[in-house]
Amino acid sequence: MSDLNVLRSPLNFLRSSLQDIPLHDVLEAEEGWWKNEGVAISDAIDRAGTPWLRMFDRHGKRVDEILYPHEYQTILRRGYRSGVVWRALEEKSLIPTYLLMYTISFHDPGVCCPYTVSLGTAVPLAKYGSAELRARFLPQLSRKDDSVWQGATWMTEIKGGSDLGAAVETISRSAGDCWLLTGDKYFASNANAELAVVAARPEGAAPGVRGLALFLVPRHRKNGELNYLIRRLKDKIATRSVPTGEVELKGSEGYLLGSADAGIYLILEVLNLSRVANSIVSVALAQRAMADALSYAEHRAAFGKPILDHPLLHHQFENRLNTLRSAFALAWESVQLLNDVWMERPPYSDRYHLFRLIAHLAKYWTAEFAVDTAKWAMEVHGGLGVLAEYGAQRWLREAMILAIWEGTSHRQILDGLEVMERKRAHKLLFQRLAEFAPTKELQAMESEVEQHLMLPPEKREALAEPLFKKLALFTAETLSRR
Amino acid sequence: MSDLNVLRSPLNFLRSSLQDIPLHDVLEAEEGWWKNEGVAISDAIDRAGTPWLRMFDRHGKRVDEILYPHEYQTILRRGYRSGVVWRALEEKSLIPTYLLMYTISFHDPGVCCPYTVSLGTAVPLAKYGSAELRARFLPQLSRKDDSVWQGATWMTEIKGGSDLGAAVETISRSAGDCWLLTGDKYFASNANAELAVVAARPEGAAPGVRGLALFLVPRHRKNGELNYLIRRLKDKIATRSVPTGEVELKGSEGYLLGSADAGIYLILEVLNLSRVANSIVSVALAQRAMADALSYAEHRAAFGKPILDHPLLHHQFENRLNTLRSAFALAWESVQLLNDVWMERPPYSDRYHLFRLIAHLAKYWTAEFAVDTAKWAMEVHGGLGVLAEYGAQRWLREAMILAIWEGTSHRQILDGLEVMERKRAHKLLFQRLAEFAPTKELQAMESEVEQHLMLPPEKREALAEPLFKKLALFTAETLSRR
Amino acid sequence: MSDLNVLRSPLNFLRSSLQDIPLHDVLEAEEGWWKNEGVAISDAIDRAGTPWLRMFDRHGKRVDEILYPHEYQTILRRGYRSGVVWRALEEKSLIPTYLLMYTISFHDPGVCCPYTVSLGTAVPLAKYGSAELRARFLPQLSRKDDSVWQGATWMTEIKGGSDLGAAVETISRSAGDCWLLTGDKYFASNANAELAVVAARPEGAAPGVRGLALFLVPRHRKNGELNYLIRRLKDKIATRSVPTGEVELKGSEGYLLGSADAGIYLILEVLNLSRVANSIVSVALAQRAMADALSYAEHRAAFGKPILDHPLLHHQFENRLNTLRSAFALAWESVQLLNDVWMERPPYSDRYHLFRLIAHLAKYWTAEFAVDTAKWAMEVHGGLGVLAEYGAQRWLREAMILAIWEGTSHRQILDGLEVMERKRAHKLLFQRLAEFAPTKELQAMESEVEQHLMLPPEKREALAEPLFKKLALFTAETLSRR
Amino acid sequence: MSDLNVLRSPLNFLRSSLQDIPLHDVLEAEEGWWKNEGVAISDAIDRAGTPWLRMFDRHGKRVDEILYPHEYQTILRRGYRSGVVWRALEEKSLIPTYLLMYTISFHDPGVCCPYTVSLGTAVPLAKYGSAELRARFLPQLSRKDDSVWQGATWMTEIKGGSDLGAAVETISRSAGDCWLLTGDKYFASNANAELAVVAARPEGAAPGVRGLALFLVPRHRKNGELNYLIRRLKDKIATRSVPTGEVELKGSEGYLLGSADAGIYLILEVLNLSRVANSIVSVALAQRAMADALSYAEHRAAFGKPILDHPLLHHQFENRLNTLRSAFALAWESVQLLNDVWMERPPYSDRYHLFRLIAHLAKYWTAEFAVDTAKWAMEVHGGLGVLAEYGAQRWLREAMILAIWEGTSHRQILDGLEVMERKRAHKLLFQRLAEFAPTKELQAMESEVEQHLMLPPEKREALAEPLFKKLALFTAETLSRR
Repeated sequence: MSDLNVLRSPLNFLRSSLQDIPLHDVLEAEEGWWKNEGVAISDAIDRAGTPWLRMFDRHGKRVDEILYPHEYQTILRRGYRSGVVWRALEEKSLIPTYLLMYTISFHDPGVCCPYTVSLGTAVPLAKYGSAELRARFLPQLSRKDDSVWQGATWMTEIKGGSDLGAAVETISRSAGDCWLLTGDKYFASNANAELAVVAARPEGAAPGVRGLALFLVPRHRKNGELNYLIRRLKDKIATRSVPTGEVELKGSEGYLLGSADAGIYLILEVLNLSRVANSIVSVALAQRAMADALSYAEHRAAFGKPILDHPLLHHQFENRLNTLRSAFALAWESVQLLNDVWMERPPYSDRYHLFRLIAHLAKYWTAEFAVDTAKWAMEVHGGLGVLAEYGAQRWLREAMILAIWEGTSHRQILDGLEVMERKRAHKLLFQRLAEFAPTKELQAMESEVEQHLMLPPEKREALAEPLFKKLALFTAETLSRR
Repeated sequence: MSDLNVLRSPLNFLRSSLQDIPLHDVLEAEEGWWKNEGVAISDAIDRAGTPWLRMFDRHGKRVDEILYPHEYQTILRRGYRSGVVWRALEEKSLIPTYLLMYTISFHDPGVCCPYTVSLGTAVPLAKYGSAELRARFLPQLSRKDDSVWQGATWMTEIKGGSDLGAAVETISRSAGDCWLLTGDKYFASNANAELAVVAARPEGAAPGVRGLALFLVPRHRKNGELNYLIRRLKDKIATRSVPTGEVELKGSEGYLLGSADAGIYLILEVLNLSRVANSIVSVALAQRAMADALSYAEHRAAFGKPILDHPLLHHQFENRLNTLRSAFALAWESVQLLNDVWMERPPYSDRYHLFRLIAHLAKYWTAEFAVDTAKWAMEVHGGLGVLAEYGAQRWLREAMILAIWEGTSHRQILDGLEVMERKRAHKLLFQRLAEFAPTKELQAMESEVEQHLMLPPEKREALAEPLFKKLALFTAETLSRR
Repeated sequence: MSDLNVLRSPLNFLRSSLQDIPLHDVLEAEEGWWKNEGVAISDAIDRAGTPWLRMFDRHGKRVDEILYPHEYQTILRRGYRSGVVWRALEEKSLIPTYLLMYTISFHDPGVCCPYTVSLGTAVPLAKYGSAELRARFLPQLSRKDDSVWQGATWMTEIKGGSDLGAAVETISRSAGDCWLLTGDKYFASNANAELAVVAARPEGAAPGVRGLALFLVPRHRKNGELNYLIRRLKDKIATRSVPTGEVELKGSEGYLLGSADAGIYLILEVLNLSRVANSIVSVALAQRAMADALSYAEHRAAFGKPILDHPLLHHQFENRLNTLRSAFALAWESVQLLNDVWMERPPYSDRYHLFRLIAHLAKYWTAEFAVDTAKWAMEVHGGLGVLAEYGAQRWLREAMILAIWEGTSHRQILDGLEVMERKRAHKLLFQRLAEFAPTKELQAMESEVEQHLMLPPEKREALAEPLFKKLALFTAETLSRR
Repeated sequence: MSDLNVLRSPLNFLRSSLQDIPLHDVLEAEEGWWKNEGVAISDAIDRAGTPWLRMFDRHGKRVDEILYPHEYQTILRRGYRSGVVWRALEEKSLIPTYLLMYTISFHDPGVCCPYTVSLGTAVPLAKYGSAELRARFLPQLSRKDDSVWQGATWMTEIKGGSDLGAAVETISRSAGDCWLLTGDKYFASNANAELAVVAARPEGAAPGVRGLALFLVPRHRKNGELNYLIRRLKDKIATRSVPTGEVELKGSEGYLLGSADAGIYLILEVLNLSRVANSIVSVALAQRAMADALSYAEHRAAFGKPILDHPLLHHQFENRLNTLRSAFALAWESVQLLNDVWMERPPYSDRYHLFRLIAHLAKYWTAEFAVDTAKWAMEVHGGLGVLAEYGAQRWLREAMILAIWEGTSHRQILDGLEVMERKRAHKLLFQRLAEFAPTKELQAMESEVEQHLMLPPEKREALAEPLFKKLALFTAETLSRR
C-alpha cells in the first residue's frame, strides 16, 4: 500500500512525478493551510449552494453585490497572494501558476476558475495592451495583497460557446477614448470581477470569427457607476467557489486589446490558458477523489477485512494510480509546451501547433478520467456515495463541469483533428514521442492516424472519437514512461 | 433520423424491441398521462429536494409524517392502480410489472423504487407467509385503488450492505404471537410504508448470514401506536420520489416469514426482484437521457446547421442507440428468466443459477451504460448541462444511484464470478447464447472465461472486471441479435 | 366555548356577522374543498419557498417561465372558476368577490393577491377601455374555465411606492395604434400575468402625479414575442402563492386606458379595490390564526387542564373574538361603500370620500390587528410557535405583508387625515355612525377630531397616529354594534 | 436629529443610559470588531438557515457533529474570550456579562443564547457542585482561550415548558459514582455543548416539581463515547447562531448538583440568569431595529425630502427612543437586582422576591417592545421590509423568539401575579419606586394593584394582562426618570 500513500497529498504526488519542483516551500505552506482550514471552508461553501445576488442596496441603488459566505474571501485571496497570477507576470513563467493550481484544486477545484480567468485577463493585457492601458490596469491585477483585482473572460452568449463567429452578438461602437459595448454574456465566470476581457464585434466589422475583437471592460465606469449589470447568478451543480452569472453590457465602456480585426487570435490564446488549467485541475480532482476513496476503503470492513484489502478493489486502486500518473504526464506536457509558446503572436511556430494538439488531447482525456474516477470513488463509498452529507458525490459534480467547460469532448476531438489536418501537428507529436515509445507501437499509431486523415471528410469526423481516445491514451502513457 | 425517433417514447422503444407487448393499452394510457402531467410533477418534486419529516404533531404525539409535495401522491398512486404490484399477484406474471416500470421510469426513475419494494414485500408474504398472515396483510397490498398499502424492504444497517451476515445487528425476540425487533436500519427505502420486510437475527441464532431471518413489520402496532420510528430522511442526490430514511426498531412487532434459519434465501429472493427492476430502470433512464439530448440537438445550431447533423454527434447517437438495444435485450432476458424462476424455493434449479448470472451481468452493465449515457447527454447540452435550471444534470444524479443501489459493480462482478465457479452458470449461459452467436466468438469467449476461472483465487478476483465487462457486452450483443 | 367555535369556519363567521349571504352554496363548496385538499397544497407551496424563474428555454429562447409546484395551478384556477373576478363583471357587484376572498384567504392569504390584481386589471378596462380594447381583452379575463387570463397592476418602481409622482420613471411613447413603454417595475405582483395595467408617463407630460397615465400591457407582443421581461422573482417572507417580480419594460406595447392626463384617478381607483381586499384578507387571516390557536389550546395541557381553560388565556380568546367582530364590521363597511361607488368617475360624490376615509381606517386597523393576532397565536403555541415545522409562524409572515402592501400605516394615516381635511369626510362618517353610537361618545370623538384638524400642520401630522387609531377603533366598535 | 444618533451604537446608548461603564475598552473593541467583520458573518449565518447535523462519520461511527459555516466559530469564541462567562466567575459580578451581551446582541441576538446557557451551567456548578465536580469541570468553562467548553441548560420536554412538574419525564438512576439519565429533551439549546445541566426525576422521587433534580451531563462518557445523542436540529425561524436540537439521553452519565429534592430551586435560579439575558437582548434588538430604520429613513426620499423629516415618522422615532430608554431602565434594574441576589440560596430574602417581580415585568415588557419595534422598523422600510434580501425582516423573526423563550407573556404575567400574591413583592417594588415617582401616580398604581389582588382567583387571572402591562410601563418609566 506504500504506493497508494502518494494519493493523500498533492505535493507528494507532484514530487513523485516531476524531477524538480520550484516553489516547494510555498506549495507546502499552501497544502498545510488547506488541510487545516481550507477544506472545511470549501465544504461549507459547497453546502451553501448558489450565493445570493443583491441587485439593489437598501436605498434603491443598483449594486450587483454577490453575497458569499464571508470566509469565501479567505480562500480566494490566499491563492492570489501566493502568486497564482502575479508570479506569471513577474517571473515570466507559467510553471508556478500551474503548480499552485494543482495543489489548490486538490482541495477546491472551483476556486481555480477565478485564478484562471484573472490570468486570462492579465496576460492579453500585458501582451497586447497599449502602454497606457497597461499602466492603468496591470498593477491592480499584479498586487500581492488582498486589494488585488480579479479578472474575468466573457465570450459565450446564449447562442452557444463553440461557434463564436455566429454566437457573439455583442456590438462595440467607438466613442472617443473608449468603445461602448452592448450585448448579453450568458456564461460569465467570476461575474463580479473588477476587470474583464470581453469578445465583441465592432460595428461594421466582418461577420464570423474574423470580425471579432477583444476588449477590456472594468467593473466601474470612469464616473464611478457600474459598467455592467449582473442579471442573475447561474445555479450550477458545482464550482460554488466561482460566481457564474449572466452579464448585461449596456453601452459599457471598453478598451480594445490588439487590433480590431485580430480578436479571434487573442480569444484563442486566452482559451489556451484555461484549457491547460482545466487539465491540471482535472488530474488534481481525480487524485482527490482517489484519496477520499482510499481513506474510506482502509476503514470500511466487509467479510472480515478492510475493503481495500479485497483483491478486486485493491487492483483497481493500483491500476487507476497508473492512469493518474499518465494523465498527469499528459497534462504537464501541455503546461510545458504552453510555457514555451505563450508569448508567441501570429503567425505561430510549429511548436505552437504541437501545443494545440497536446492541449486538446489533454483537455479531453484528463476530464474523461476525472469523471470516471469520481464515479468510481462514489461506488467505493457504497450507499454513502449518494448522500449529500458526505463529500464523495461532490467530486462527480465538479468533474462534470470540467468535462464541459472550455469545450466538451466533441470540441476537443474536432479541433484536435483540424490541427492534425491543417498543421500536420501529429507529425510533431510523433517526433516528440519517438524518444520514449517502442518504435513498433509508434509506427502503428502513426499509420492509424494517417489513414484516418485520408478518410472522406464526413466519415473522418464521424469516426474520430475512438481514434482520438486511443491517441490520447497512447500519448499519455508514452509521456509517463519518461 | 427516422431510427432515432424511437428514442422519444418508451412504448415505441418497447414495441421495436419486443415481439408482443401485453397490456398495450395500459402502457399507452400511462405514457400519455406522464407526457401531459406527470413530467411536470416529477420535475417539481426533484427541484423541491429532500422532503421534511414531521416527527411530532402539534400536540406532542410522535407521528413521523413525511411532508411531500401534495401531488407526489398523484404520481405514486397511479402506478399502483395501473397494476405495478397487483398484476404480479393476480396474473402470476412479472411481465406486466416490468413493462409498466420501463414506461414509468422513462419519466421518473425514482418512483419505481416504492413499487419495487412493495413488490418485494408482497411476494415473500404470498410465497412464505402463513395463511393467517396472508389473510391479514395481502389484501391491503393488492388493492386496486388509492387505499393500497405500500411495502418496504429493510436490510442494510450502518455497517454495510453487502456483508449482511456481519452487518445486521437487529435482534428479534419471540413474544407469543409475534416477535419483537430491536435495531437500526440505515438505508430504509420507502420509510413510511405500511408494511416492511426486515432482516433480523433471532436471539441465539447462528452468526453470519445463516442466522438471519426475515420478518414482516407493520407501521402500526396492534394497539395503534407507531411500530417503528423514522430517525431522519436521507438527503440523497436524486430519487427524490422515494423517501429513504433511517428507521429505528425498538421492540417493534414483527411476524416471521418462512423458517427462522432460512432467512437469507428469502432476502436474496427479494434482492432478485429489485436487481432486475434496477436493470429495467437503468435502460429506461438511458433512453430518456438520449431522448432529451435528441430534442436538444435538433434545435441547437452551430456552424450553420443543427448540431445533430454534425457527423461526430450523429454517429454517437446511432452507436448509442445500438448499445441501448443490446442493454435492453440483456435486461429483458433477466426479466424473463426471473419470471420463470421466481416461485422456486431452495434447492434451486439450474435455470435459477442461470438467472442469477444474467441478473448480475444485467445489473452491472445497464447501470454502467446509464451513467455513461447520462454523462454524454449532459455534454450534448454543453454549458446548459450543468445548470440546475435544466433537466440534463438530473439523469446523471439518478443514474449514479442506480449504479450503487442493489450492489455496486464490485458486488455484481464478485457474485457473478461466484455463481460461475460454484454453479457453473456460465455453461448454461453459453448454451443459451449458442443459438444466436457465431460459433467462433462463442468458443473464444467461453475459453476466456474458463481460463479465468482457473486462475489462483486472489488473481481471479483482482482481474475479474475486464472479463466480466466483456462477458456482459458479449451477452448483451448476442441477445440483441435475436 | 360555544362562541369560540365560530372561529373554525370562515363561512360560519360570515354567517354570524352578516344577515344575508349571497352565494352560500358556492362558499360552502369552496370551504369544503380547502379543508380537504387546499390546505395541504397551500402548506406545501409555503414550504417550497420562492419559485424558480426559468429565463431561457433549452434552445436559448427567452421565456421567463415561473416554475411553480405543479399543484399551484389547482389552487389558483379554482378561485377564478368560482367567480372571484367574473362575478364582479357579470353581476355588477363586488360582494361575491369579497365573500369569496374572505373564505379563500382564511386558508391561503397569498392567493387573493392574484385575484385582486386581476380584478384591478379587469375593472379599469371595463370602465375606461375603448370598445375595441374591451372587445379584445375583456372576454379572456372573464372566462369561467381554466383558460382564464390573469391580470396584474404594476405601479411601484425602485424609488418607492407612495410618492408615485416622483417615483414613476417609466416612459411611454405613442407609436401608431399603441404606445411603447420603457422602464422597470420593482414590485410587480403576479409577474407572469397575461395582461397588466401599468403606470407610465407619456413623453412630454407634466411632472408629478398629474402627468401619469395608465396603460394595458399584454404579456406578448402582437408578433408573439414576450412583451416584458421578468428580471427576477422577489424572495419574500410570505405570500408564496403569488410570484412578485421585477419587470423590465423595453419598448413594450401598451394601450392607453382613459385619457392621458387623468391616469392618477385610474390608479387610485385600482388601489381602492386592493386596499379593501387587503382589509378583508387581514380579518380572515386573524380568524385563521385564532382558529389554529384554538385547536392547539384545546389539546395542550398544563397544570392539569387544557391551556384553553386557564382563565387568562380563555379571557384573551373571548376578548379577541370581540375585536375580530369589530374589525370585520369595519372591513365590511369598506366593501359595501366601495360597492356603491366603484363605478363613479371624477368628480366624485361625497359617498366616495366617505368610502376613502373608511378604507384608510380599515386598511390600517385590520392589518394592525392581523399582525397582533398572529403574534399572539404564535405565543399560544409556545416553543412550537417558532418552528418552521408548524404552521403558527406562517401567519405572522403573511400578516406583515398585509401591513405593508397597499400602503403602510403611515400612508393610511396621512391619507386619511387628508381626506378629512380636504373633503371633510369625517363629517359624513359621524353622520353614518350616529345611528349606532351613544351620542356622548360620538360627540367627544367628533370634537377630538375637529380639534386635531385645527393643529398647525407639522403638529397635526406628527401627532396623527393615536388619533387615527382611536377613530378606527371607535368606528369599528360602533359598526359592530349594529 | 442629534438625539437619534445614539441609536447607531450600543456603546453610545449604554453611555447615555448608565453613569459609569466598567469594561469600557473591551466593549469598544467588541463593537469595533462587529461593525467591521461580525455583522457580515452574522448575516451570512442567518441566510444559511438551519445547519446540518452529521450523525455518522464516513466510517459509520455516530458523531452528531453540527456542520456550521466555518466562520461561526469566529463569532462564538470571541465572546467567550472577551469574558461573557469567565468574568462572572472570576469577578463575581454579572455586570460585565450583561454589558457584553448588550453590545454583542445589538449585532447578533442569537449568539447570546450559547453564552447564557454556558453561564447557566457554570453558575450552578460553581454554587452547588461538589468540590470534586468543580475541580473536574469548572476550569474548562472558565478558559479564556478558544478551547473553552460550552454549557447548555436542558429542561423542556415534548409535553411542555412551563409545567415542568408534569412535563419532565426524564428519569435518573443512581449508579455508583454517577447517575444514569434516560429521556428526551425537546428544546435543547446549544445542542452540542460539552457540558449540560439537565432536569430529571430520580427514580422513586415525588411527583411534581418537588421531585425534580438537576444534573451535570458531559458530552462524552468516561470511556470517550458520546454521552447523549442529537436526534435532529430544530428548524427555527431565527437565532440561527445557536443550534437547538432534540437530545436523547439513554443511560447518559450525569452528576447531581445540590440535593436530589431541591432541584426546582436550582432550575429556577438558572432561569433567572436567562430571563434577565432575554430582557437585555430584547432591548438591544429594539435598538438595532431602530438603528437600521434610521439609516434607511435618512436616505429614502418621498415628496421631496427624506422620509425621516416627515413629521409623523420623525415623531415616532423620538417617541420610540424614549420608550427604548425606559425599557432599558427596566431591564437594567433586573440586572442589578440579580447581581445582588444571584448567590442567595433558599430560603431567599425579600430582595430576591423583588428581583423576581422585576424580572417578570422586564422579560414581559422588553420582549413586547422588541416585537413591536421590529414590526415598525419593517414598515419604515416599506416593501423592502418583507424581502429576504434585506435585513429588516430578520429582527422580527429574532424578536418573536425572544417573546417566547424563557416563558411567554402568559407565564410572566401569571408568575408575576403569584410573587405579588404570595410574597407581596409589589410592596417592595413601590418602596423602590417611591424615590422617583410622583406620589399621586404611585398611590394610584399601588391601589390598582391591591384591588386587583383582592379579586376572586378566576377573575384575578383572567384580567391580569392589562394590569401587568400598566405596571410594567409604570415601572419602566419611573426607573428611566432616575
